[in-house]
This record gives sequence, structure tokens and C-alpha cells, in this order.
Amino acid sequence: MTRGFGFKLIAVDAGARRGEIATPRGVIRTPAFMPVGTAASVKALYPGQVREAGADIILANTYHLMLRPGAERIARLGGLHAFMRWPGPILTDSGGFQIMSLAGLRKVTEEGVAFQSHVDGARHMLTPERAIEIQCLLGSDIQMQLDECIAFPASPDEARRAMELSLRWAERCRRAFAEKGSPGQALFGIVQGGVHPELRRRSAEALAAMELPGYAVGGLAVGEGQAAMLGTLERTLTFLPAGKPRYLMGVGTPADLIEAVARGIDMFDCVMPTRSGRHGQAFTWSGRVNLRNARHAEDPRPLDERSACPAAREYSRAYLHHLVKAGEHLGAMLLSWANVWFYQELMAAMRAAVAEGRFAGFSAEHRERLAGAETNRE
Amino acid sequence: MTRGFGFKLIAVDAGARRGEIATPRGVIRTPAFMPVGTAASVKALYPGQVREAGADIILANTYHLMLRPGAERIARLGGLHAFMRWPGPILTDSGGFQIMSLAGLRKVTEEGVAFQSHVDGARHMLTPERAIEIQCLLGSDIQMQLDECIAFPASPDEARRAMELSLRWAERCRRAFAEKGSPGQALFGIVQGGVHPELRRRSAEALAAMELPGYAVGGLAVGEGQAAMLGTLERTLTFLPAGKPRYLMGVGTPADLIEAVARGIDMFDCVMPTRSGRHGQAFTWSGRVNLRNARHAEDPRPLDERSACPAAREYSRAYLHHLVKAGEHLGAMLLSWANVWFYQELMAAMRAAVAEGRFAGFSAEHRERLAGAETNRE
Repeated sequence: MTRGFGFKLIAVDAGARRGEIATPRGVIRTPAFMPVGTAASVKALYPGQVREAGADIILANTYHLMLRPGAERIARLGGLHAFMRWPGPILTDSGGFQIMSLAGLRKVTEEGVAFQSHVDGARHMLTPERAIEIQCLLGSDIQMQLDECIAFPASPDEARRAMELSLRWAERCRRAFAEKGSPGQALFGIVQGGVHPELRRRSAEALAAMELPGYAVGGLAVGEGQAAMLGTLERTLTFLPAGKPRYLMGVGTPADLIEAVARGIDMFDCVMPTRSGRHGQAFTWSGRVNLRNARHAEDPRPLDERSACPAAREYSRAYLHHLVKAGEHLGAMLLSWANVWFYQELMAAMRAAVAEGRFAGFSAEHRERLAGAETNRE
Repeated sequence: MTRGFGFKLIAVDAGARRGEIATPRGVIRTPAFMPVGTAASVKALYPGQVREAGADIILANTYHLMLRPGAERIARLGGLHAFMRWPGPILTDSGGFQIMSLAGLRKVTEEGVAFQSHVDGARHMLTPERAIEIQCLLGSDIQMQLDECIAFPASPDEARRAMELSLRWAERCRRAFAEKGSPGQALFGIVQGGVHPELRRRSAEALAAMELPGYAVGGLAVGEGQAAMLGTLERTLTFLPAGKPRYLMGVGTPADLIEAVARGIDMFDCVMPTRSGRHGQAFTWSGRVNLRNARHAEDPRPLDERSACPAAREYSRAYLHHLVKAGEHLGAMLLSWANVWFYQELMAAMRAAVAEGRFAGFSAEHRERLAGAETNRE
């Protein structure tokens, strides 16, 4: 199942891991941040810009693509890589999380989840087998099991039920993938169990026993707060094999990334850099900057002199402020570009820090600064 | 007034003119099409893409910029070229046309035009003197006189009144520009007079007597239809000096451009390439293509193999269709890019045809094809 796919741990420092995931479409340097290309586009960026920013891999959403343009259509057009002109590795989620957050009239049964499309109201059924079939039609390099991600807060009983169902779905996905997956593609399991340590342990151990090529921690960053997220993460990771990549789904802020890397996470995805960019928010090496703020209206300085991104270096804050206020496309384009680039610079800096045995110092220096919102100092 | 600014006629062929406008910021090859950067951005394009597409000059709208971010602010930030990172020549209109089409509560008097901002409802007064002052604060290379552009249809009396007022404003602009303009900057007059030949003649002759460095034909493409537009244009141009550049404002479709070049027009501007791009419409060497159309849903061919634009060559119509249907920013970005590029290719092809004495053949070959909407042949 993992022919052509492999994970190599290069260095460990202060809990943080520097590694490499080999895939037939290229190496993924870890810790890695995957920009999100929900509907086969990392919003407001050309694919070449995503690569130049330093991304080795992107994420695409099965839920969105199965509804529009449809997995069979993408397969007929040569697969997702050709369709969206991204030649590197792609990870697809299973669709479960988006069904919970976007679709109408959901009904979860042992068989799978029935739901109504948010695009046209049509009824669909997603089973573990169909989730794998769709991901194979898309041709993604890393595929995710179908899981049930419940809302926070949930009772222990509800969290246990969903976790156990997700385990049974993991096994069905494993079998479907063994049949339909291609050499070099990998299926990851997803640990569930809410903020309940015992449920997380049982989920992680059962998935580890399936000997999948990688594991995700799901169901976090859904409202439980950073402390609960990190506590749950820490306990969960002790039950996952060290030799497999570990992916924290849907996370997060720059400070979240530093904290999670410090606990041994290798992969992340989040819409934050692109979504924030479309709303006038920038991430910089000095913290967050809200370009809507009137204090930028006559500021001739660039967004971030420490960034190598042309969007952060070559345009004035005054111009970015104007573009955001005027609702110009270019504002979203430049800030999304700057943010995706900043996230990649942050990951590259963490990889270098781990490799050079100075991650603790890096973390201490940056985690508070990057957590801060815009200040007058800046 | 025209030091450093000059027009050179290089070739005339079948009524069409090949020329060059020299400005301190670079040469404008004519016939030229100016992409419109209304609010200091050619919508959905990076400035470098506009240049690479072949544009020598862009247009920016005085009305939008005076309201947001404000002309004085742009001046404090070093002028419009630095603000929007466009080092080449910029033409600014006077604001008159946008006040007529966008602002609320307009009142035209001898003094100027009072209006309410469409951004925040604030009251403003634009006089000929202030229009020049604003354009000098922006630092544009080619500035336009304030004129009154009336709605179509208008009675001959109304057209005459507005034309005569525009002439008096031209004289006031000329004086203001003589005082405030910088060496190398140029002020263009605007011929008005609706579709009335006699009014157009009087307007053109009076402006020609002012010996301005260039002349625009205004008040066309406002609903009178292509035949009336071209008829009026033809008659108007006979009264303008051959040695000055001639600019047809707000025009138009590819077929309009060919027809107007055939009548001796040297410069154009229009929002059509960018606005159409944001609405899923593409201009190609085979005619217009509506990417919303379901027939493109599984078409693996590029938009236009005859274009050199990456957006037209490297992405499938199926992908463009998907992006447009999904409302992805990238759809607007790619189609705006392809359209701006196509318009520049069309101008370059016309310039070459005139220079090589084959414009009549070029015009016959392309004007009908480019006028056509999408057909099944395509």
C-alpha cells in the first residue's frame, strides 16, 4: 500500500521533528504547511505562486470537488493535478468535515452520511468506500479516511460513539483503498475522541494497529481553545508510532503551528492565510496586521521587510490599505500571496531550527510575537 | 506645454495610422489600447502582468481616486505611478464622465459640477481648475479637460449647450494646466456635440485652435449604436489636425477598435476586457467565448491557442468553466489576464498591419470574426 511512499525522520529537537515524506510526485519537507485549494484553486493565487512560496503539497476538499465539478468529470479530464495545474503532491480530505460544517440535512448511519449539497440542494450519500473511490478518481497522493467529526462541545458518550464509528469506517476505507489505490498513494487514518484522553488513546491505538502510512489528529481547533487542543494533542501523540507522519487537521495560527510542531506534528492545513488575506488581514514576522486600519492609510513602508514575498516587499501599506478599502481584487491577491508565503517561511524557519538544534530558542523568540495582533510599536 | 511630449506619425494605410507618442516615462506605440485601472489597479491583474501583456500606457479615473484615497494623499505618497507601481505613462480622465454615470445629485453650472460621492455621500465640487489640480497631484502624463458628457439621446439644443460649456471649460483647463502642469505632461481636449455633425465640427475646430497636444472624441459609445458612432467619428476627425494623437474614449469591442483605427483613431480605453473577464467572458482570436456555457465543462482545450498569454494557453476551458461557476477569484484573474493580453495582441497586430501596408486585408479578415459571439464551430 505504501510502495513509493515513505517517511524519513531526519532530526528531533526539543520535541519537534524534521522529516521528509517521499511521494512519486516529489518530496514533502516536514514540518509542512499545506495551503488549501478547496475547489481546485488556492484562492486568489496562481498555482505557480503557491509553489514559489515554498509549498511542497497542497490540500483539496473532496466535498467541494465531488459536488462541483464532480470526481468522475475530473477523472475524465486527467485527474486533479492536471486539472488545476499543480504537479506536486496533493492531499485530499474525505469530505466528512465539510459535510458537518456546510451541507444541509445530514444523517449519519453505520453505512455512511447522507446530506444535501450546499451548491444545488441535491441529495448525496458518502460512504467510506465512496470517499476512497472519489479520492482515487481525483488521483490525490495522500487520501484521508472518512470520519465523523462532531461539534464541540460533545458529551463523552457522543464522542465515543463517533470515535468508534470512525474506527469502523477507517477499516472499511483501508479495504477499499487496498483495492482501488495506486502505488505511491497513501491512506491516512484520523484519530478522533474529542477532548477525552481515554477516547483519544483507544482511537490512536486501534488506528496504529492498522499500520497505515500516516495519521491525522482530527476534531481539534473546533472551539475547545488552544490549551485544550494542545493538551489533547500531546496525549494523543504518545499513542501514535514515531515513524509515521502526523498531521494536525485544520490548524491554525502561526502560534498554533509553533506549539504543535513543538509537540511533534509534521503536517498542517488551514484556510487562515488565504481567508484572512481576502479579508484584509496579513500575517507578518512582526505579528498580524489589519490593513483595514486607518493607521496604514499613509504608511509608505512595505508590509513586511523580513519577508521575501514580492507582495510583502514591493507594495506600500498605504496602497494595500487602499486596495482593501476599495474592494479591489488585487488587495485579496496580494494579501493572500503574502500570507501563503509567510506561512511557508515560518515552516522553513522551523525546519531549519530543528535541523540545527535550536528549536527551543526559535519557539521562545517567535511564539508570542506571532500570536500578537497589530500593536502601535509595529 | 508639450516639452518632452510629442507625436510622430510613422505610417498611414487605408485610413489607419501607425505612430508613436513620446513621453518622459516611455514611448506609447499607436494605435494603443489603454487598460483601465479605475481605482489605481487594473482589476484582478498585477501591474507587471499589464506591462507584459504589451500595454505601454494605462488609464486611471480621476473621479474614483479623488474620492478614495484622495488626490492629496496620493501626492504625499509620491504620486500615482509610485502608489500603484506602474512606471510607464498614465492617462487620467477628468472625472466628468464618471460623475455623470456614478455620482448622485449632480448639478452642472458654469463654474463646474457639484455632486455627491457614491462612496460615502459626501458633497464635492469639480471645476475645470480643480480637475487639473487633481490630475497634477496624481502626476499623470496625459490629462484630460473637464467636459460635460450628456446622456444619449439628447436634443440638439441640449447637445449644443453642453458642447459650448465644454469648450469654455477646455479653455479654463488650458490656463490651469499652463500654470500647474509639468514639462513632459500633456493636456488633451475633448470634442463633444453628440451625433450632430455641425456641433462636432464647431467643437473640433475650436479645440484645434487651442493647439493642444492631443484630442479626444468624447460622448460616443453611450447608446447611439456602432453605425452612428462611426459616422460621427468619421466626420469629427476631418476637423482635427492630423499631426496630433486622436483618442476615442470608452471604446470598445474588438470590432469597434478595428473600425475606429480604420478611421484614423490612435488611442482607446475601455473596461470591457477586465469587466468581461470578471463575468466569465473571454475575447479570443476566434471571437467571444462565454466560459459559463456548459459546453466547456469537459473541454480540455486551452482558451486560445493563437494567444501568447499563459492564461489562454496553459489552462483548459474545462478548468476555466469550473472556476467561473464556482466563483473562484482565479477565474476572474485568468480571464482578465487573457482579455487584457488579447486586446494588446490585437493592437500590436493592427500596428504591424499598418506599418506593412496591409491594414485593409487585416481589417476584412478580422472584423467580422471578432464581432461574432461564440458559435458551435469554435
